[in-house]
Amino acid sequence: MLRIVLLAIVFAATGHAVAERPVAIAIHGGAGTILPEHMSAEKEAVIRAALEQAVRAGHEVLTSDGTALDATIAAIRILEDSPEFNAGRGAVLTNTGTVEMDASIMDGKTLQAGAVASVKGIRHPIEAARRVMDHSPHVMLIGDGAMDFARRQGLEFKDEDWFITESRRQQLQAIQADETAATQLSESWFSTVGAVALDRHGNLAAATSTGGMANKRWGRVGDSPIIGAGTYADNDSCAVSATGHGEYFIRHVAAYSICSLVRIKGLSLAEAADEVVNNTLKNAGGDGGVIALDSKGNISMPFNTPGMYRAAVHPDGSVQIGLYREDD
Amino acid sequence: MLRIVLLAIVFAATGHAVAERPVAIAIHGGAGTILPEHMSAEKEAVIRAALEQAVRAGHEVLTSDGTALDATIAAIRILEDSPEFNAGRGAVLTNTGTVEMDASIMDGKTLQAGAVASVKGIRHPIEAARRVMDHSPHVMLIGDGAMDFARRQGLEFKDEDWFITESRRQQLQAIQADETAATQLSESWFSTVGAVALDRHGNLAAATSTGGMANKRWGRVGDSPIIGAGTYADNDSCAVSATGHGEYFIRHVAAYSICSLVRIKGLSLAEAADEVVNNTLKNAGGDGGVIALDSKGNISMPFNTPGMYRAAVHPDGSVQIGLYREDD
Repeated sequence: MLRIVLLAIVFAATGHAVAERPVAIAIHGGAGTILPEHMSAEKEAVIRAALEQAVRAGHEVLTSDGTALDATIAAIRILEDSPEFNAGRGAVLTNTGTVEMDASIMDGKTLQAGAVASVKGIRHPIEAARRVMDHSPHVMLIGDGAMDFARRQGLEFKDEDWFITESRRQQLQAIQADETAATQLSESWFSTVGAVALDRHGNLAAATSTGGMANKRWGRVGDSPIIGAGTYADNDSCAVSATGHGEYFIRHVAAYSICSLVRIKGLSLAEAADEVVNNTLKNAGGDGGVIALDSKGNISMPFNTPGMYRAAVHPDGSVQIGLYREDD
Repeated sequence: MLRIVLLAIVFAATGHAVAERPVAIAIHGGAGTILPEHMSAEKEAVIRAALEQAVRAGHEVLTSDGTALDATIAAIRILEDSPEFNAGRGAVLTNTGTVEMDASIMDGKTLQAGAVASVKGIRHPIEAARRVMDHSPHVMLIGDGAMDFARRQGLEFKDEDWFITESRRQQLQAIQADETAATQLSESWFSTVGAVALDRHGNLAAATSTGGMANKRWGRVGDSPIIGAGTYADNDSCAVSATGHGEYFIRHVAAYSICSLVRIKGLSLAEAADEVVNNTLKNAGGDGGVIALDSKGNISMPFNTPGMYRAAVHPDGSVQIGLYREDD
């Protein structure tokens, strides 16, 4: 009997036990009026493929004993490079036709966090947020100063033309021709990409990246770079990345409030995420959704819009990809 | 008997009953190594006078049946104009000797909020935050865009020289000559001004304004313009304005977390504010303090630093002014 106990302790102290701990990842690519009848089969296939590629890239980091932080970044880099999503290349355009991006990341183990807002030209804004966390004493850097910091960190910059796609040009023209049309375009108006991950060491991370709101003016910043609103991670509760009408997510401190309901009120992850998305935010008029993950590997991806681009790899290895409500 | 009940109902429906509801206000002017032995009698007198003037100005708005939002602004305008505090005129200088200011405000009745970050030249950044809340669909505007918005709103601008005081020039020189000296200067390095108020209608508001961190670089933004971190107000729980080492207040979503502990965990205001300031933040290394106020008029002003500039007018009309720990 003693030998068995000792053996268990030895296993727990080595990689064997660690290797059996759950890993999990979830990603999103924006929420809005995503409906099958608005989507061509070709576009749907491209989006499903990009989501699957991104979530598998993050999952591979986790199964290789990488960190949750690295897994979120691996997934988001792919979504930032995919022109279909509102982040990095293919981000929406501001009122003056430029691309201004926001991103944030948080480490659930240390509660360290990093964020950038209103940056231009950085190929992977999520990498800039990571550098702020790892290589500065600060949490949030904005505008020219953040770009200067990113350059000193050796991050890759691209010309503005690299970011701008023809469909975003057309979108901006359509919005500016008829501002009321914007309500028809909510999925691209408010969308965002994000990832949450749980690694073999039991650590959670959350990350979010966006081009913000199409046709935005006056240096508007939404919830994506705001720790607590668009992104939060705490090993003691959960990791959350949000997408939606950012102003509401800021006022209700959406990401942190889900973690609060888990930690303080003792709700399950699914109950807490549902409460904030389908009660608090919905009642306030805040369209959108979240991806949430706890340290047991439970994943919850509620949204109060017709659809949300989302994907997950669960602890049992099963892969879930969804665009519409009926995909669940 | 019926007549008495009816009379009570009539009173409740008129200004008489409203006039007896509690009003209260609290303000802060920064926390840090504020010690009697470091302070001249003259400087102390100036600071006490400015705090008293500001808190009385806010209180007068409340006793004149003004709103909690207007009361916080009345108090903060005075602190922004006072060169002794790190906000508006007399704000700390950035690494390049400029003044870049942040501010935010929140309405506890509607959860509407407004914030500006990295703005220059606006005499009263708190007014800019208010305009964002009242006259834009957004919560947060930053940099040149926020300044453009403030100009269109007709806000008063001043030349940079108006903001810069000789003592801030000397402070920057001292920090840049010996970066380790910065730790000796924490009260001016991280300070902020803020106000929380409760009006006769039972509405709470919170507001915060700052020049940020002395010698800051790369567009660093702290907790002051972040809804949830530096500022939060919700009639159902409390109103909070924070001052301190902003990075920690962001990671722990300090202001909102106090309101969460009141609303979800049922702690008293004093217990919740003490838990976050003297437990969570202190254990993490986050120096600073908060002012907090609930809808009954309870005021709590904990700090984990040697001192915090603070003042309050309680529901009974008593005025409290403090700089050091022993002032309580």
